[in-house]
Amino acid sequence: MKRTTLAAALLATAATGLAAAQQPEEEIRYRQSVMNVMGRAMGPMGAMAQGKAPFNAAVAQKNAALVDTLLALPWNSFGPGTDFGAPNKADPKIWKEAAKFRQAADGAQKAVASLAAAAKSGDAGKFKAAFGETGKACKACHDDFRTKEFHN
Amino acid sequence: MKRTTLAAALLATAATGLAAAQQPEEEIRYRQSVMNVMGRAMGPMGAMAQGKAPFNAAVAQKNAALVDTLLALPWNSFGPGTDFGAPNKADPKIWKEAAKFRQAADGAQKAVASLAAAAKSGDAGKFKAAFGETGKACKACHDDFRTKEFHN
Repeated sequence: MKRTTLAAALLATAATGLAAAQQPEEEIRYRQSVMNVMGRAMGPMGAMAQGKAPFNAAVAQKNAALVDTLLALPWNSFGPGTDFGAPNKADPKIWKEAAKFRQAADGAQKAVASLAAAAKSGDAGKFKAAFGETGKACKACHDDFRTKEFHN
Repeated sequence: MKRTTLAAALLATAATGLAAAQQPEEEIRYRQSVMNVMGRAMGPMGAMAQGKAPFNAAVAQKNAALVDTLLALPWNSFGPGTDFGAPNKADPKIWKEAAKFRQAADGAQKAVASLAAAAKSGDAGKFKAAFGETGKACKACHDDFRTKEFHN
């Protein structure tokens, strides 16, 4: 599957900005749904990376591929006007510091692409290292661009 | 990616039934999230199938593959005790007529696998026909197993 870059996604958002702004509730719900499905896929990978579950190459590959696919999806839904409209944890910095947000999101996409490749290799050590990097990239973006509490 | 059959999923649910029953809210949110992300992917495919947008093989392939991957995910989250706990549209028949639900879900998974194959072929006619079958399979399951209004 072709990777949608964040730059391309933001261009698309600019083109459809009006439509996005007209339905912030749906955009918020969509990006939260993507994050929720990704979070579930992270669970078994985290357990394996932390040694709480034995490494299973098939489980690693399946979940890493899923996260890699899903992480391309939410960026279009952070368009203008989608900061309010339904309870969400998007930090205002997403729109105030858009370049930094782009950079953090791109970093996460690169880390997850590496995770998918490492999982595909079937090498437990490579998988664990790549999962660590993915965790850092997720956390970096969440620390900077996700609020602790829901806001409307 | 290996296809998780519904039978395997239900076995897994049986094995983790207690855990599932302890967090119905999370299971409801997860299956709704999967459906939400799938619904978004159906949009551009529907537009192409109905002739409202020109056929684009890459868009068809990307979205069909996504739906094919996602449709394997929600079944584990219809475990025992997940019929209540958060606003949802799951019909009680899911649990009362489990075999029929399994059959409808399996039908949808087969239709979506065919859609992914048709989209991959790049043939607009095959894609449209397969999308029609997918739409019927989705509708059949929704008609029988989804309530019209949310309930708690």
